[in-house]
Amino acid sequence: MALRIDFTNMMADVVTGGIDTASWGAAKREFPKVHAGLERRRKAGELGFLDLPDDEALHRQSTEYAKKFVGRFDDVVVLGIGGSALGPIALRTALLEPSWNSLDPKVRKGVPRLHVLDNVDPRTIGHLLEHLQLARALFIVTSKSGGTAETMAQYLVVRDALQREVGDGSHRHLVFVTDPEKGALRSISRDEGITALDIPPAVGGRFSVLTPVGILPAALVGIDTDALLAGAGDMARRCATSDLSKNPAGVFATLQHRADVKLGRHIQVLMPYSDALRDVSDWFVQLWAESLGKHAKPNDAGVGPTPIASVGATDQHSQVQLFMEGPPDKTITFIAVDSRPSDVEIPKLHEEVKELGYLGGHKLGELLDIEQRATAGALARRGRPNMTIHVEQADAWHVGALFMLFEIATIYAGEMYGVNPLDQPGVELGKQFTYAQLGRADAEQARQEWNMLPKPDPRFSV
Amino acid sequence: MALRIDFTNMMADVVTGGIDTASWGAAKREFPKVHAGLERRRKAGELGFLDLPDDEALHRQSTEYAKKFVGRFDDVVVLGIGGSALGPIALRTALLEPSWNSLDPKVRKGVPRLHVLDNVDPRTIGHLLEHLQLARALFIVTSKSGGTAETMAQYLVVRDALQREVGDGSHRHLVFVTDPEKGALRSISRDEGITALDIPPAVGGRFSVLTPVGILPAALVGIDTDALLAGAGDMARRCATSDLSKNPAGVFATLQHRADVKLGRHIQVLMPYSDALRDVSDWFVQLWAESLGKHAKPNDAGVGPTPIASVGATDQHSQVQLFMEGPPDKTITFIAVDSRPSDVEIPKLHEEVKELGYLGGHKLGELLDIEQRATAGALARRGRPNMTIHVEQADAWHVGALFMLFEIATIYAGEMYGVNPLDQPGVELGKQFTYAQLGRADAEQARQEWNMLPKPDPRFSV
Repeated sequence: MALRIDFTNMMADVVTGGIDTASWGAAKREFPKVHAGLERRRKAGELGFLDLPDDEALHRQSTEYAKKFVGRFDDVVVLGIGGSALGPIALRTALLEPSWNSLDPKVRKGVPRLHVLDNVDPRTIGHLLEHLQLARALFIVTSKSGGTAETMAQYLVVRDALQREVGDGSHRHLVFVTDPEKGALRSISRDEGITALDIPPAVGGRFSVLTPVGILPAALVGIDTDALLAGAGDMARRCATSDLSKNPAGVFATLQHRADVKLGRHIQVLMPYSDALRDVSDWFVQLWAESLGKHAKPNDAGVGPTPIASVGATDQHSQVQLFMEGPPDKTITFIAVDSRPSDVEIPKLHEEVKELGYLGGHKLGELLDIEQRATAGALARRGRPNMTIHVEQADAWHVGALFMLFEIATIYAGEMYGVNPLDQPGVELGKQFTYAQLGRADAEQARQEWNMLPKPDPRFSV
Repeated sequence: MALRIDFTNMMADVVTGGIDTASWGAAKREFPKVHAGLERRRKAGELGFLDLPDDEALHRQSTEYAKKFVGRFDDVVVLGIGGSALGPIALRTALLEPSWNSLDPKVRKGVPRLHVLDNVDPRTIGHLLEHLQLARALFIVTSKSGGTAETMAQYLVVRDALQREVGDGSHRHLVFVTDPEKGALRSISRDEGITALDIPPAVGGRFSVLTPVGILPAALVGIDTDALLAGAGDMARRCATSDLSKNPAGVFATLQHRADVKLGRHIQVLMPYSDALRDVSDWFVQLWAESLGKHAKPNDAGVGPTPIASVGATDQHSQVQLFMEGPPDKTITFIAVDSRPSDVEIPKLHEEVKELGYLGGHKLGELLDIEQRATAGALARRGRPNMTIHVEQADAWHVGALFMLFEIATIYAGEMYGVNPLDQPGVELGKQFTYAQLGRADAEQARQEWNMLPKPDPRFSV
C-alpha cells in the first residue's frame, strides 16, 4: 500500500518552463507558515474532515445501518447534488465492478444497484421512478444544510411516489444524511421517525465523502469502508508535518500554486490512466474549483486555478493536442496505477500487418502504462510541466488516500492564495435569483434585482 | 424545430467586460474573409463533413446494414477512441432512454444495448467480455486510419475471444468503419470478407459523427438518423452565408475568438441544462481543443482556447463558484431546452416548511430552466460574459443541428486563429514514444529520443 508523487517533470532542471530550484527552495522555507495556517484552522474546529478516519462512532452509523438492511433492497438511490453526489459517484466507479447497475442480480449476488440522481432533469428522474420497484428501493436524501433546492425537489417527488406505492411504510424507504441538529431534513426526520445520519457541522459539503455522505452508500453496496478510512488516515498522518519534502499534500498544493502564480499555469488537469479513477477527477474538480476560485480581496478580479477532469489513454485523442501545443498555461497531473490484479493479454494475430503486429504479446494494462509514460515524456520534452501520482492499486485504501491528499492540499492552497477554502459566496446570487422566480417568500430583494436585469436584446440573437 | 443563440450577455452593452459594439462591428466587416476561408477549404475538398447531410448513399450503408441484422444482436460494442467514440457516446446519452444498457430487454423491445469501449483499461474490457454473450454480440471496429493503437489492441483481444467462442462465424460479428481504400482494417476486411463501411477521406476523425462512425451505431439501436442528418443539413444551409448576423456558427466562433484574444477569456465552458445533452459537451471538447490548440507559427508559444465540459444544474454546485468569482478568463455557453415532452410535477408536501414549501406546484423541468436563467443572469450581473443556445427539444434533429453548428464554427475559428483546424501534429511524439516502448520496428529514432529523456529524480519525489 503506497502512494507516491513523482514531480521530476515539474522542475526546471529537466523541463523548460518548469519550477526552478530557487523557487522550490523558497517554497520549502515558506511551507511551515502554510502548514501553521492549516493547524490554526484545525484548532478552531473548522477542518472536521481530518478527524473522519478515526471517528469510529460516525463510521458505525453507516455500517450498522447497512448491516441491518442486508438483502432488503434491490436499488439504492442517492438524492443529492454537488458534494453530496460526486463522492458517491466516484466511489461507485472506482470500487464496484464496471457497469454495476446493468449486471444480472445473480452476478451482483443480491448486492443492490447504486443510482445517484445529481440533477433535476425530469427525463432522468421520471425514467428512474418508472422502472424502479419502489417496494425494494431505498432513497438516501443527502443535504448538509437540509434545504438544497434540487435535492428537496427530488425528495418531494420521491416521497409522493413512495406514499402512493408503499403507503404508510414510506419512511422505511428513506434515510436522511444531514446536519446533526439543524435544517429542514433533520426536523422532518424527528417529526416522522425517519432515520437520519450525521454530517458533522465542521465538515463542509465538498469535504464530506468520508462521512455518511459517501460511506453510507458505499457500505450498502459492500465497499470496504474500513480500507477507505485507513487509506485516508495514513495520508492524514503523512501530511502532519511542516517539512514540505515529506508532505505529499503540501507538495501537490505548492507545485500547483507556484505553477499558477509564478508561471501562469492556471489550468490544472487531473488525468488518471484508469477507468476506475475517472470520476475521482470530477470529484477533485469541485473540490479545487469551489474552494479556491474566489476573491482574495473584496474588489480584486478573482483568483484560483481552473481544474479540468481528463482520463487517459482516452483523452490523448481529445485534449492532449491542446496540452502539447496550445498556450503554455497548464499543468498535467497523471494518476498511474502501478499494479493490476488482472491484466488482459493482447493475442498474436495478424502478426504480418505492421499496424497490428507489434501489439501481440503485450498486455492491455501494460499498453495503458506505457502510454502514460509516453505522454508524460512527450509533454516534458515540449516544455509542458507534469507530475505523476503513483498508486499501487485502484482499491479502497488508495482511493481513500487520494481523497485525503486532495482535501488537505486544498486547505494548503487556500492559505497560499489567501482565500477561505471553506466557503462559496459566489453561488448565492444564482440561488436567490432561482428563489425569486419560484416565488419563495423571503426572496423579495432578489426579485427586484432580477427584474432589473437586461432583457434579451433582439440585435444579439441569431 | 429551431435553434437560436441569444448572446445578449456576451455584449458590453449589458455586461461589464463583454464585447463592445465597435469590436462587434469590426467582426461583422471581417467575417466575409473568414467565410471565404471556409469556402476555399471546401472547394479544395477538405471539408467533407459539410456534404454528409446530403450523402444518401453513405447514409444507406448504415441503415441497410442495420435493417439486415434486426433482431440478430443483443449487444452492439463500438471499439474506438477519440473521434470514433465521443460521437456514439453523445448519441447514446442524448437519444436513447436513460440507463439504456441496464433496462430489461422487454423494455428495450429487443433493441440492442450499446457499449462504447473508449480506452484500453483491462478491467473494463475484461469485464465486458466476461459478461457478454458473444454469439449475440456485434463489434464495430472504428478507426479512420485503420491503425489506431488502442483500437487495434481492443480488436485483437475481441477477435481472439470470438474465434474461441463462435469460431468460423467470427467475421459475422465484426464490422469495420474505416477509410474506403487505405489502412490495415480495410485490407483485413478485403482478405477476410468482413463488411467495412466508409469514412470518406475528406472527413476528419473529430468531424465524423455523421458518417457511419456515429450513424451505424445509431441506426442499430433505432435512433432516427434521418432527423439527425436533416437537423445538420438545416444548420449547414443557415451557415452558408457571409452575413455574420445570420450565421449561427459564425456568431459562435466570432464571439469565442474575440473573447479570447481581445478579452483574455480563453477558457470556454459548454454547459447544457439537460442530462441528455451532457455528452455533447465531451464531444465538443475534443472538437474545439484538438482543432484549435496548436502553434499558429512554428515557434510561437501556442494558441487556442481551452474548452470545459459542464452540466447544469449539477455543476452550479461544483464549478459555478469559480465561474462567478475566479479569474475573469472564461465564457460560459449554456444550452437550454425550450420544451420537454414530459415534465414531472413537484407535489405540494411539507408546505409549512420554508425550505420545501415554495417548490410544490412547480415542475422539475421548470426548475431546471429557471436555474439556467438565474445562473446566466447572476453571471451577467457579475461581469461574466455568457450566451445561451436555445434548442426546441433535445431530439435527433436538434442534436444533428448542434453537431453541425460546432463543426462549422471550428473551421471559422481555425481561420481566425490562423491554425489548420484539421490536423493534430502535437500527438505524434507521444505515439512515437509508445511505439518505441512497445518495440515497433519503425520507431528506432523515437527510441533514441525516449532513452535520452531525464529519469525520475529522487529529489523530486514524495
